[in-house]
Amino acid sequence: MAQNIYDDPDFLAGYSQLARSVSGLDGAAEWPSMRALLPDLRGCRVVDLGCGFGWFCRWAREQGAASVLGLDVSEQMLAHARAATGDETIAYQTADLETLELPPVLFDLAYSSLALHYVEHLAPLLTTVHRALVPGGHLVFSMEHPIYMAPSRPEWLGTEDGRRVWPLDQYLIEGKRLTDWFAKGVVKYHRTIGTTLTLLIRLGFSIRHVQEWCPTAEQVAAKPELAQERDRPMFLLVAAQR
Amino acid sequence: MAQNIYDDPDFLAGYSQLARSVSGLDGAAEWPSMRALLPDLRGCRVVDLGCGFGWFCRWAREQGAASVLGLDVSEQMLAHARAATGDETIAYQTADLETLELPPVLFDLAYSSLALHYVEHLAPLLTTVHRALVPGGHLVFSMEHPIYMAPSRPEWLGTEDGRRVWPLDQYLIEGKRLTDWFAKGVVKYHRTIGTTLTLLIRLGFSIRHVQEWCPTAEQVAAKPELAQERDRPMFLLVAAQR
Repeated sequence: MAQNIYDDPDFLAGYSQLARSVSGLDGAAEWPSMRALLPDLRGCRVVDLGCGFGWFCRWAREQGAASVLGLDVSEQMLAHARAATGDETIAYQTADLETLELPPVLFDLAYSSLALHYVEHLAPLLTTVHRALVPGGHLVFSMEHPIYMAPSRPEWLGTEDGRRVWPLDQYLIEGKRLTDWFAKGVVKYHRTIGTTLTLLIRLGFSIRHVQEWCPTAEQVAAKPELAQERDRPMFLLVAAQR
Repeated sequence: MAQNIYDDPDFLAGYSQLARSVSGLDGAAEWPSMRALLPDLRGCRVVDLGCGFGWFCRWAREQGAASVLGLDVSEQMLAHARAATGDETIAYQTADLETLELPPVLFDLAYSSLALHYVEHLAPLLTTVHRALVPGGHLVFSMEHPIYMAPSRPEWLGTEDGRRVWPLDQYLIEGKRLTDWFAKGVVKYHRTIGTTLTLLIRLGFSIRHVQEWCPTAEQVAAKPELAQERDRPMFLLVAAQR
C-alpha cells in the first residue's frame, strides 16, 4: 500500500494551513493553468484521483458534471470532503492508487492534482485509468515536477558569487525520494518527464498538452515570493486523451 | 539569419575533434537511443535538418533510404559531407533553419540531431517540416536538454558538503543563452520541454516518444566520465508523427 502521510496528524495539520486547503482551487497558483486544460464538464462523468478535501469534485458539479467520484487514501480528508457537501451526485471512496480498480469505459474525465508522484507503480494505475475512460475521454493531471523532486537535497543553494540556484543532481536516477514536508520521511517517487509521457503513449493515450508551470507576471506582482518559481519548475501539468 | 558558429575557424577546429565528428554516429553516446526511434528506412525519403558532416545521411542510404537531403548552414561542413560520398541519391544544400522552405508532402522522415536549439523561432520551421512530411511521416530529433541549457552559469558546482550539483536557475525564462563552447558567444535558444511538445501538438504532430537521455550501465563502464550525465540530462530525444 502507498504511504498515507495525509492521515499523519502533524502532516495533516500543516497541510490544512496551505492556501490550497483553506481557499480551495483558487488558493492553488497553478489552478488557472489546470482549468484551461479541462474539457467542458457539462454532462461529464468525472473521477478525481487523490481528491483530498474534495474542492475539485464540488467545482466539477458546479460546472455541470453529471457524476463525480472522488478517491483518496486519506480517511480524514474524505471525512472533511463528505461533510462539505450533501450533493448525491458526488461520491467519495477510500482508494489506494497503487491498487486502484475502476469500472471500464465509464468516465469522460480522469483528473488528478498533485497525487501521482506518491505512486510507486504508475503503469498499473494508468492502465486502469485508460480502460476506465470512454474513447476520447480526457486525462488531466498535475504532479510535482521532476526537477523539483530529483535532488538529493531539494533546497535552494546560495553560491559564492551571489546566485541562488537549485542544486540538481540524480535527475536521471528514478525512484524513491524521502523528504521532510510537514512530517519527516514523506515518500515520493521520481520519474523523468520522458518516462511519464512515453508510458502514457505506450498505454494508448494521445498527449494533448505538456506544461511546466510558470507563474504569470500578474501572479508574481500579487505574490512576489512566486518569482523564485521561474528558476525551477515546481509543477508539471499534462493533458492526454484516450 | 541564424548564427553560423560552425564556420568559425576556432569552433570548427574544436568541434572536429569530438568523437561524433571523428567517428560519426557511433561516436555519439545518444546514437543507439536515437536509432531506436527511427522507422524502417527502406524506401524512405529523408531530410536531415542540420546534417553537419553528413554521417547520418550516408547511414540512411546504407539502411535503404531512397533519397536523402542533407541541409546545413555551414558551408565548410557541407564541403566535407559532399567530399565523403559520390552517392547521387544524397544531396547536400545550404540552408538556414530559421527561414527554411521545403516542398510539401514529400518526405517520410525528417531527422535532426542537436540542431534545433540553435533555432530562435521553432514554430515556422516545424510548420514547414509538418507540411513537408507525408501523412504518417516521422519527425525524430534530438536537442540540448533545457536543464542543460537553462542556467546562467552552466557549470558543475561543488558544495560545502561535498556534493557536485548542476546549478539550475532561470529554467522557466525562455530565450537566448550565450555560452562559450569551442568559441566565445555561441548563441542557443532555451525552451522548456513543455513548450516544444505543446508546439508540436498544436501543429498537428502526434508525440510518439520523449526521452531524456541517460547513459546505459555498459556505456558508463566503458567511459566512466559519462556517470555525471545521470545527474543532469544533456540531451532530449523526441519522436513525433504527422
